[in-house]
Amino acid sequence: MVRTVSSDRLRERFEAFNEIGTTERGGVNRPSLSDANRRARDTLVEWFEAAGLGVTVDELGNIFGRRSGRNDDRSPVLVGSHVDSQYNGGRYDGVVGVLGGLEVVETLNDAGIETERPIEVVAWSNEEGVRFQPDMLGSGAFAGKFDADFAYDLTDKAGNRFGDELERIGYRGDAPCEPRDLHCYLELHVEQGPKLADAGHSVGVVEGVYGFVWLDAAFEGTADHAGPTPMHQRHDALVATGDVVEAVRRIAGTGGDDLVGTVGSVDVSPNAINVIPERVDFTVDFRSYDDGTVERAAEKVRKEIAHAADREGVDWECEAVMRIESQSFDDDLVETVAGAADDLDAEYTRLVSGAGHDASYLNRVCPTAMVFVPSVDGVSHTEAEFTEWDDVVTGTNVLLNAVLAEAGGAADAA
Amino acid sequence: MVRTVSSDRLRERFEAFNEIGTTERGGVNRPSLSDANRRARDTLVEWFEAAGLGVTVDELGNIFGRRSGRNDDRSPVLVGSHVDSQYNGGRYDGVVGVLGGLEVVETLNDAGIETERPIEVVAWSNEEGVRFQPDMLGSGAFAGKFDADFAYDLTDKAGNRFGDELERIGYRGDAPCEPRDLHCYLELHVEQGPKLADAGHSVGVVEGVYGFVWLDAAFEGTADHAGPTPMHQRHDALVATGDVVEAVRRIAGTGGDDLVGTVGSVDVSPNAINVIPERVDFTVDFRSYDDGTVERAAEKVRKEIAHAADREGVDWECEAVMRIESQSFDDDLVETVAGAADDLDAEYTRLVSGAGHDASYLNRVCPTAMVFVPSVDGVSHTEAEFTEWDDVVTGTNVLLNAVLAEAGGAADAA
Repeated sequence: MVRTVSSDRLRERFEAFNEIGTTERGGVNRPSLSDANRRARDTLVEWFEAAGLGVTVDELGNIFGRRSGRNDDRSPVLVGSHVDSQYNGGRYDGVVGVLGGLEVVETLNDAGIETERPIEVVAWSNEEGVRFQPDMLGSGAFAGKFDADFAYDLTDKAGNRFGDELERIGYRGDAPCEPRDLHCYLELHVEQGPKLADAGHSVGVVEGVYGFVWLDAAFEGTADHAGPTPMHQRHDALVATGDVVEAVRRIAGTGGDDLVGTVGSVDVSPNAINVIPERVDFTVDFRSYDDGTVERAAEKVRKEIAHAADREGVDWECEAVMRIESQSFDDDLVETVAGAADDLDAEYTRLVSGAGHDASYLNRVCPTAMVFVPSVDGVSHTEAEFTEWDDVVTGTNVLLNAVLAEAGGAADAA
Repeated sequence: MVRTVSSDRLRERFEAFNEIGTTERGGVNRPSLSDANRRARDTLVEWFEAAGLGVTVDELGNIFGRRSGRNDDRSPVLVGSHVDSQYNGGRYDGVVGVLGGLEVVETLNDAGIETERPIEVVAWSNEEGVRFQPDMLGSGAFAGKFDADFAYDLTDKAGNRFGDELERIGYRGDAPCEPRDLHCYLELHVEQGPKLADAGHSVGVVEGVYGFVWLDAAFEGTADHAGPTPMHQRHDALVATGDVVEAVRRIAGTGGDDLVGTVGSVDVSPNAINVIPERVDFTVDFRSYDDGTVERAAEKVRKEIAHAADREGVDWECEAVMRIESQSFDDDLVETVAGAADDLDAEYTRLVSGAGHDASYLNRVCPTAMVFVPSVDGVSHTEAEFTEWDDVVTGTNVLLNAVLAEAGGAADAA
């Protein structure tokens, strides 16, 4: 039978949770390991314990709440997401998946349902990566991509160590952060793109995640006075950068049907109205579901950078600082999610995520899939981020029924 | 007869002066009304008084040192420049003209020369405009472009008022800052461009100063996630800016034989590797000796900004925050400078200054001209700024003999 969560309880929790670190413009500011992030974690642990979950914090600060199964030795069904935010970010990103996971457990508790497998709800550390890079640090470490010492030594712009800050907020746990036997991982998340909203669908059945490359690049020319320096004697780092901004747009437009490319960050030095830019540091982000497309785009832009530098007579640097292969989720688990949506008569779109998620790393550990709910106007990572509440509830219902299908044994109790 | 200054005394003063606010990389950091700027002013006043000059400080903090003439009622010959610096700027910019003026007086004192007209040496306030905008504030107010209350209410980035800071460092004088009867103004300055160094000449005879326009512009689009947002749904403020950076280069390349154009400052928001730029604030600087060329360039780039905004689907703003007409210096005074260089057998280039100078404003008050000395590699506004000492001395000798020619009566005493 199809079960449904309590919209009111979920809503009440959602609103109360987002009182923590709330901003004037209606967003939240809870970057990783901040005081607001600590208060969010404390609230979550309190609610986990009130729901009867056994709480474990691992050495990276990942928080697990465990509901025993009828056969507690069987590998658990893991659900969750993250509760750290962007600086002045939105209220839905990450929160929907963690509170949705908790709501699944509460619904089972209310209905007195015992599942065959244990169910765990997780909040991963440092998903956003705005204070400490790389992003998806907690899930990456869990998947064996990073070790704890690597994470501890990361520093924010103020020079604070991840390890020290984790200790400071009281979430440097004892449990090892390493791969373990999981039956599957299911993550509910906002889409952060426009596809579901454009289609008018409440749910996205996510079949995989784009691969991406992040490049840190720079041009270095000569800082001359903008007046007396003739055009033909200039070595302007910004003119070279302008070429690359245009090239990234052109490469993205022709390099593959799903390729996207962005120059997101540009820092000009000395950045004065009457001085020719001496140095520009900038970033390039390319993403596609096809890893070869990403590789070719990175190769093309490297050539464009070298060519722009040659034309302008400036030096250049370009380094790949992050490269994540695309991930195809488990076919059977994706069909479980689609089946749950069908059972609920929820209209859904099958899609691939352009954004990275903790699920990308979990996919290396166990069968993984995701449930998306729409982002109005495709907006995320800003305070204007918004999802219609009915869609949050529908997505949580899909999560609940997918969890029940995977955890097994629910029919007995129903 | 041709007279020459004391290279040793000038050098000693130059080195001692540049001990004030010196930086690790060999430049100086004495921005307007800073503590270092105060110490530089104190030193200058001390040296002025030791040279027998009568010191007056006006309400804008401009410092005048007056040497009486035989006929003290006649209008004075004014020489000078400025002693404020860029943040981490060079040791020559401004300083050469003020200490050169003082050296002219010391040379006359040593030789016991009385001139017909009085001679005044001036250090203008806030020429650089890096801490308080607009630049050339002291000379502009002297020429009647700004009044004192306008200047007092200007604030730096920290919110400190110009008037309060001037008071704080003890240089808010009583004398009114307003146009008065001057026989002429002569300013010795480093070229800040490559022409003299390219020509291998020690001196530049400056016939005028480029006009310029400064534009503050911005694009505002939408800050979406760099992954899930398809290329055709983007409104990327940086892509539009890239178009304008290229357009400025193109306009400068074709808009007139002396037109130069620069985008010097770019600020991207939110400036994150994985977020499509929502807003970019940037500046445009166009200069030419022909004011119509500057106007046409500004009009062209405004069209390019509107077109780039339309193509990308973003909003735009563009405002002219500064517009200075080109200045042609007084023909007779320019020939006095050229004659002084001829008499000294100094090789010189006749040229027009691409950089703005206090002389641009003084040209509205009285006959004005400038003497340039070369900037090695054309470099200025950085700690690497350098002029060969022999060239500084040659330029000061040209200044001395031009001053003698204008102040009159020196032959009697010689």
